[in-house]
Amino acid sequence: MVAIATSFSAAAAVAVARRSSPAHLQLVARRRLPFCTAASSSTVPPAAAAGFGWADALRVASEFGVGDESDLSGYFQKVDICNRGMGNKGEFVEFMVEDQVVGYIHKGFTEHLRDFHDVFTIVSGSNGKNSVEHVTLHSSLRTPEDRTIAIGDVIKGLGELIPGIRNELYPVTSSYGMPVYFSLERAAAPYFGIKAYGVHMNGYIEKHGEKSLWIGKRSDVKQTYPGMLDHLVAGGLPYGISCKENIIKECEEEAGIPRSMSTNATSVGAISYMDINGFRYKRDVLFCYDLRLPVDFVPNNEDGEVDSFRLIPVPHAANIIRRTDFFKPNCNLVIIDFLFRHGYINPDCNGYLKLLTSLRSGDCS
Amino acid sequence: MVAIATSFSAAAAVAVARRSSPAHLQLVARRRLPFCTAASSSTVPPAAAAGFGWADALRVASEFGVGDESDLSGYFQKVDICNRGMGNKGEFVEFMVEDQVVGYIHKGFTEHLRDFHDVFTIVSGSNGKNSVEHVTLHSSLRTPEDRTIAIGDVIKGLGELIPGIRNELYPVTSSYGMPVYFSLERAAAPYFGIKAYGVHMNGYIEKHGEKSLWIGKRSDVKQTYPGMLDHLVAGGLPYGISCKENIIKECEEEAGIPRSMSTNATSVGAISYMDINGFRYKRDVLFCYDLRLPVDFVPNNEDGEVDSFRLIPVPHAANIIRRTDFFKPNCNLVIIDFLFRHGYINPDCNGYLKLLTSLRSGDCS
Repeated sequence: MVAIATSFSAAAAVAVARRSSPAHLQLVARRRLPFCTAASSSTVPPAAAAGFGWADALRVASEFGVGDESDLSGYFQKVDICNRGMGNKGEFVEFMVEDQVVGYIHKGFTEHLRDFHDVFTIVSGSNGKNSVEHVTLHSSLRTPEDRTIAIGDVIKGLGELIPGIRNELYPVTSSYGMPVYFSLERAAAPYFGIKAYGVHMNGYIEKHGEKSLWIGKRSDVKQTYPGMLDHLVAGGLPYGISCKENIIKECEEEAGIPRSMSTNATSVGAISYMDINGFRYKRDVLFCYDLRLPVDFVPNNEDGEVDSFRLIPVPHAANIIRRTDFFKPNCNLVIIDFLFRHGYINPDCNGYLKLLTSLRSGDCS
Repeated sequence: MVAIATSFSAAAAVAVARRSSPAHLQLVARRRLPFCTAASSSTVPPAAAAGFGWADALRVASEFGVGDESDLSGYFQKVDICNRGMGNKGEFVEFMVEDQVVGYIHKGFTEHLRDFHDVFTIVSGSNGKNSVEHVTLHSSLRTPEDRTIAIGDVIKGLGELIPGIRNELYPVTSSYGMPVYFSLERAAAPYFGIKAYGVHMNGYIEKHGEKSLWIGKRSDVKQTYPGMLDHLVAGGLPYGISCKENIIKECEEEAGIPRSMSTNATSVGAISYMDINGFRYKRDVLFCYDLRLPVDFVPNNEDGEVDSFRLIPVPHAANIIRRTDFFKPNCNLVIIDFLFRHGYINPDCNGYLKLLTSLRSGDCS
């Protein structure tokens, strides 16, 4: 994932964009962070404002004649941003529990696990090279509870190697709905290549046949992707809560949507991506929801994670996605999925099927 | 594809179903045709009535307490019916044009092409076994027009080996929107493993927050899948017409929907499947559309291909899919896709992601 850094000047970027060929218009924010290597794998998105305001986003959104709306290249770029580093898959080994692959661990990261030999068993090959073949758990850790506690202690012991601890546990399974082998701190999931599940919801209204999306701007002090744009409601899926209950909970906390409305949130499918970045191998599956809201409803953030909301016509939101890096990266994909399902991207656009299938580039299981 | 044969007794099947375990309730029609082998590869669905009536379908649809609606096994079975014979892929070789793979041809079928050596070049391996490696076109056939005419003549020459000629040309490409190398008779597409594209539309109404689907029953004298259930509108995508224009044309012909309404048909995604059956390798990609119709609209078939229509509450249509083989096989998939997008199948059902991704089991490109 990338974040737009404080040094970004929206006005300058728009100016650059205006000089560009319309067909390839793309506002690319200057990023403070280079593509992370193993050495910088502890990097997380900076706790800094995104450096653009609503005025910048709305101006880019409503400019006519900038690029061809059947040109999908801006969307492809957003999918690519969530699916980096596939060429480096060979640097990872399988993480197996009870003979099932539950994740992937970078060979370099396994070196940090060697000291914890009562928790992790590093299995090396017998081909004389002594290279790591896979990682598993010590046979003494038989119950989910034992594993959760032991691995939690390791993560504490690793300190700053795994930054941004959330104190939120994710279930570890081979695929969704299968037995949970143990639970793992959310921030550690990509270091173990665990699949993480989330619920993401587009909230929209329809008036005179035209749809508009409620878009949030994340708080400038939020730990991840501060100041960036977001769809209305989203959250990771912690252990022990159903998707439906989670979306209802997040609706209340993030947008002040009462249960009487949020119970109408409709599941509409799922997207997935795989992103390799240094030691981190993100394997995310997002369950997507739509909620059609009353035209006079105004969202109200209750947990301090959202700075403000704006109601934006769908074609304008599409322009922001195609032309800028203003949205939190994975939110782009959830809104692109919305654009497909609501006919804003249609089969007569060149690249339709390729873009559609790319929304499930990750292991969607 | 399978068709329900004349010998099928709906009343008997319902009776069997009532004695079955509810969790595994599945009305399976007796089929006249066994799974086709190479020897019987010329078989097409029989021109015979399906042997059930609306009364049978509606009774099965509305039975309460039969099976658990979160049990997706009935849907998985319908996906499997469209994706048979994957284990036999090795019996096919690539069909290449201008160095691109455009299809797959059964090794047995290539023997029938050998006589046409001014049209097809059968390339054999140099490993001493003299086995066919791939098939390509004779180098003298340089233009799409030349190829279309030459291959059309071959298909006529093959006679009953390719039955059910439709006199409808399909474009042959490596993937949708790419250059068209030539055009091919629709009925011949599976014998050359050409990808075939179609447009399929669910027409629905919404009243008091409840959605109902308009379901058609195919004419008893239709060449393919006579008497079976169908969604409102569908058609193959012939050469030289856009998806949108095609859906508007089919809306008019199949359901009497005027352009003023059908122009609101919304593209919502695509499904794909691959089905190997003897010499035939179907590789279909269906562009899916939704059309919300006025509550008082009544469809009216204009081309004689549909016997009658019924408006069926979505949960009842879902029951018919889960519990019977009454729908034309690929229509099941298009309606299952509708069930996902409209929240009738939700992430808290066991197998959600597996079923969702199985809707694109084929090469969706």
